[in-house]
Amino acid sequence: MTRTLVASATKEIIIGFDQPFCVIGERINPTGRKKLAAEMIEGNFDTVRADALAQVAAGATMLDINAGVTAVNPNETEPPLLVRTLEIVQELTNVPLSIDSSVTAAIKAGLEVAKGRPLVNSVTGEVEKLEAILPLIKKYNVPVVAISNDETGISEDPDVRFAVAKRIVEHAADYGIPAHDIVVDPLVMPIGAMGTAGRQVFHLLRRLREELKVNTTCGLSNISFGLPHRHGINAGFIPMVIGAGMTSAIMNPCRPQEMEAVRAANVLNGTDPNCQTWIRTYRDHQPASPGAAAAPQENPAGSGGRRRGGRAGRRAAE
Amino acid sequence: MTRTLVASATKEIIIGFDQPFCVIGERINPTGRKKLAAEMIEGNFDTVRADALAQVAAGATMLDINAGVTAVNPNETEPPLLVRTLEIVQELTNVPLSIDSSVTAAIKAGLEVAKGRPLVNSVTGEVEKLEAILPLIKKYNVPVVAISNDETGISEDPDVRFAVAKRIVEHAADYGIPAHDIVVDPLVMPIGAMGTAGRQVFHLLRRLREELKVNTTCGLSNISFGLPHRHGINAGFIPMVIGAGMTSAIMNPCRPQEMEAVRAANVLNGTDPNCQTWIRTYRDHQPASPGAAAAPQENPAGSGGRRRGGRAGRRAAE
Repeated sequence: MTRTLVASATKEIIIGFDQPFCVIGERINPTGRKKLAAEMIEGNFDTVRADALAQVAAGATMLDINAGVTAVNPNETEPPLLVRTLEIVQELTNVPLSIDSSVTAAIKAGLEVAKGRPLVNSVTGEVEKLEAILPLIKKYNVPVVAISNDETGISEDPDVRFAVAKRIVEHAADYGIPAHDIVVDPLVMPIGAMGTAGRQVFHLLRRLREELKVNTTCGLSNISFGLPHRHGINAGFIPMVIGAGMTSAIMNPCRPQEMEAVRAANVLNGTDPNCQTWIRTYRDHQPASPGAAAAPQENPAGSGGRRRGGRAGRRAAE
Repeated sequence: MTRTLVASATKEIIIGFDQPFCVIGERINPTGRKKLAAEMIEGNFDTVRADALAQVAAGATMLDINAGVTAVNPNETEPPLLVRTLEIVQELTNVPLSIDSSVTAAIKAGLEVAKGRPLVNSVTGEVEKLEAILPLIKKYNVPVVAISNDETGISEDPDVRFAVAKRIVEHAADYGIPAHDIVVDPLVMPIGAMGTAGRQVFHLLRRLREELKVNTTCGLSNISFGLPHRHGINAGFIPMVIGAGMTSAIMNPCRPQEMEAVRAANVLNGTDPNCQTWIRTYRDHQPASPGAAAAPQENPAGSGGRRRGGRAGRRAAE
């Protein structure tokens, strides 16, 4: 059974097929958040702190930390800013962190200060990237997200993306990094632009799980890009990827609809023992309208009754 | 590709792996609805009519029609009542119907009056049941729901349930009934009582699809029996069963959360071409609160930007 250990100074989390889905909070990321970027450049970490606390309160298992505020000279500016952000967040919460940067120097600096066993986000199949990141992964003995693209870009063919992931795992093995420390991102395309994006990723997830036996992750909300009511698409996608074997996602835990889908899928996937988390979270749930009230069935499956040998009553409520 | 044809007098529907999920409206069923039973006994079909229209308006693909108002002498009372109910509903709507009864005489009477190609709900693996129902299925050339239990009851072992389904398909073949006219119900147990119920049914659905190549259905809401906020569990279950290969369900289409899950899963499963149904249904969707607003990503997957070769921005909204 594949188990990826991540940890803060005081808390260990296992990412694995038999574990609750690992929700990696995506909010602390100035990419595309101009206001947050401006604040972080000014040395104002109020939003970072608020987002850290809000995401943990909403149920994030881990927090992704990105300090990519600018494309100008990031090799100089990003390492100290990422270090500062990591230090602030790990002082404030006890969840494991993901060190997210495309700048090798920033990842290295982050690894120096992050306590416990952080996840590194990310390496790709590009040779230059592999040679920059994998030695750090080996040296600091941490897991890494492996994105299944290489110098040729992102293939639309899922079998090519699988081959890239396989190559990264093999390359990591050459460095002595075990497969259970590689968390593969199969890359999720927007379904609005590519109608096969869903089936592609389900197929790929199954192969990654059965053949490579690795844990997996993705930038979840990409799937709904460009569509109306994105939360509805995201909330449908979550149970499908969990059913197909995905074990974590980089997502916004502050969206109730998405988190409800995660919790329901954990129940259905057998990773919420005795439905404890579900019951604790929703026992006082009020339906949106009286017409949507959930009442017990009068005649649940297997309870017998008149229709012996047939389907027992399937009514949700009267 | 397995295709099950159902039809009303004027409308054909295909149940199949490459088709939108078939939602069989469950509301017209007095089992467990005492008020409806009393009305139907009195010859009052107002609720039947209202439920037929409401379910079709809510997006039901088909309607299940059950007239099992009493366990007292059903062989006498149920056939004429089922006939009357079928006649009323098929006059009012054009969706295909499912003739739902545990009384063979009622199914026979229903088949005499139902127009088009109704679905019969149901046969089981019980020999007596098979010998009563299969000749009718052959004679009227209609598809049938096959519930995977037999004289020994409902096995908790999914492999036994698979074997029962296989035996029904083989038995039907002896009558000249093709496998594509058998819609197997693998039987869904409440997840609150059996923590493996979800994984069991996903495993079973995959086998039914890959080995028996049959369409499938279930009484959907059984999964959430006994739990708080059942709609949340149901809405998580729907994408998971669709991902596992289920092609229809007997469910309440008047629940917005469940129907949203069906529509999202159709998009993600590639059976809502160009997301047409999704966009038509949700283009004016208002999020529950301003904080939940969905805005386009500034940096969608594959759009390039600074993080070339890495994951593009995964932000849902700022």
